[in-house]
Amino acid sequence: MNTLLLDSEDVDANARMAAIIEAVEQAFGAFERGDSQMPAKSYIDLPQYNGDFRSMPAYLDTGEWDAAGLKWVNVHPDNPEKHDLPTVLGTMVYSDPETAVPLAIMDGTELTMKRTGAAAAVATDYLAVEDATSMGVVGAGVQSYTQLEAISEIRPIEEVVVADKDDARTQAFIDAFDDQFDVRAGSISEAGHCDVLSTVTPVEDPIVGTDDVADHTHINAMGADAEGKHELADDLLVDARVVIDDHEQCTHSGEINVPYHEGVLGDGDIHGEIGEIVVGEKSGRTGDVGVTVFDSTGLAIQDVAAAHVVYEHALENDNGTSFGLIDADGV
Amino acid sequence: MNTLLLDSEDVDANARMAAIIEAVEQAFGAFERGDSQMPAKSYIDLPQYNGDFRSMPAYLDTGEWDAAGLKWVNVHPDNPEKHDLPTVLGTMVYSDPETAVPLAIMDGTELTMKRTGAAAAVATDYLAVEDATSMGVVGAGVQSYTQLEAISEIRPIEEVVVADKDDARTQAFIDAFDDQFDVRAGSISEAGHCDVLSTVTPVEDPIVGTDDVADHTHINAMGADAEGKHELADDLLVDARVVIDDHEQCTHSGEINVPYHEGVLGDGDIHGEIGEIVVGEKSGRTGDVGVTVFDSTGLAIQDVAAAHVVYEHALENDNGTSFGLIDADGV
Repeated sequence: MNTLLLDSEDVDANARMAAIIEAVEQAFGAFERGDSQMPAKSYIDLPQYNGDFRSMPAYLDTGEWDAAGLKWVNVHPDNPEKHDLPTVLGTMVYSDPETAVPLAIMDGTELTMKRTGAAAAVATDYLAVEDATSMGVVGAGVQSYTQLEAISEIRPIEEVVVADKDDARTQAFIDAFDDQFDVRAGSISEAGHCDVLSTVTPVEDPIVGTDDVADHTHINAMGADAEGKHELADDLLVDARVVIDDHEQCTHSGEINVPYHEGVLGDGDIHGEIGEIVVGEKSGRTGDVGVTVFDSTGLAIQDVAAAHVVYEHALENDNGTSFGLIDADGV
Repeated sequence: MNTLLLDSEDVDANARMAAIIEAVEQAFGAFERGDSQMPAKSYIDLPQYNGDFRSMPAYLDTGEWDAAGLKWVNVHPDNPEKHDLPTVLGTMVYSDPETAVPLAIMDGTELTMKRTGAAAAVATDYLAVEDATSMGVVGAGVQSYTQLEAISEIRPIEEVVVADKDDARTQAFIDAFDDQFDVRAGSISEAGHCDVLSTVTPVEDPIVGTDDVADHTHINAMGADAEGKHELADDLLVDARVVIDDHEQCTHSGEINVPYHEGVLGDGDIHGEIGEIVVGEKSGRTGDVGVTVFDSTGLAIQDVAAAHVVYEHALENDNGTSFGLIDADGV
């Protein structure tokens, strides 16, 4: 019995974005229908290393396929400076739900970027104007690339404005995409006046205000991943149609966590969960005008759904490295 | 940045039992001193497959070394008959606590057997008579082998009696050890009259009564791993010095779970946790006469401690397979 090992390049090569967007959309639907299991993330806090580990197990059944797995991931902000390593590393174990055989072990870092981009694309598909052709990106770090990669799968993006105070990061983003799009550096407000905006920064003081967006912009607020972080001004949020991925996670550590706990934004200001829109219980965009916001914290079922796509594609194409991790003769 | 892959043979080859016993003892001590983190196991229940998955993350700091990791494990009782696979499979991710780099990924099935044997040996060292030379084993399944392997590290075991209603399993156990010990098949009562007894069965009706053990036998009750399971008669337990690994796990699914919930056995009947004995807060055996019982449910810190030993030994000896799972150039 072999386990398929998929390194970051294998994950990248087998993560067909259109298929991952579809799988993540199915996962949001399964979540809303109660056809998934997602125990709360378990944390191990290591203040002595300024870091933490998170365990994210999940199972989902879309009706067409089911899948199980676990992502073991961390946040170690000192990694880049002290160790020349990424802040976030991840390892994904993808298992057969019927037998628990570990079908694949894959780089969870690359997978996280793909499934996070895919979540933004699902939300954008339901919430952005149909003819969206321009996209802004605030924050040109590692998570920003899959925002454009995924969203351009579901909208005919032509023009891209990237805003980052770090010129090297900005230029790297432009260089990566200028053969596919009309990409240029711009201010936050210029990025925000595009049809779609993704904010991907770790800030604790909001950097996008009401004047920084157009009257119809759909915003994917991707950056907040801990208490105290938020990217959008309170009045922008309160006036917008706010869609979340999960109430518990979003009020705990998502874009809305600060105004929610300050009482500025309440449950009445939340339009619904993305899964409710996917299954048709709630509406998506209903007019040409109106700002929409998707608060994405990232769900374990997204990782399992993305891993399903990567594993199936790698298997079909004989990619990856087969390894006999488990001795199945021990029955 | 490479990750060391260790399959079941690698784990077996690098799991020096004496070192694992020492590491597990240190882990019990760290647990008692509050120098460990062990979030409650997360369960994913899949009744449609008659199985479940469990996520077991942990960190511990022994003072000499610290270690972090996660075991992803399952119980699928239909596996042997339906799929020719073991009921329990495990995958262990062993991570550097300082950077979160996945240092090793190893077979968690073999690791579980080793660390479970080691836990019994730690308890036996504190609770069995000093000159124990005979050992009984009730249940000759896959977990029984490391009981003898580990306990013979800390006591000069010469005579072994194995009791199992399955003759083939009994003979396999005898064949495995008859070059090292005087091993023979016997009744439960013959096994129980040895100086040390390990029970390793999944029964729901107790099979070892007060008359089945000697006046000084130390019993490692290893089998119970779910509500409703227990191997020892209530009066045997109540009269014995009962030591547990963790109060929450033992009262939930350990040997004592049934009498505890029926009110037959209360907190006053529990002598203490094994960690309390390791750190010197509670006594171990105090006389030549008296039955002692160790209720072992298995803690995530045991897995991490055992993984630490296996990884360090494999690294020193150039064992295992190096694999570039994570792309560390993505800073």
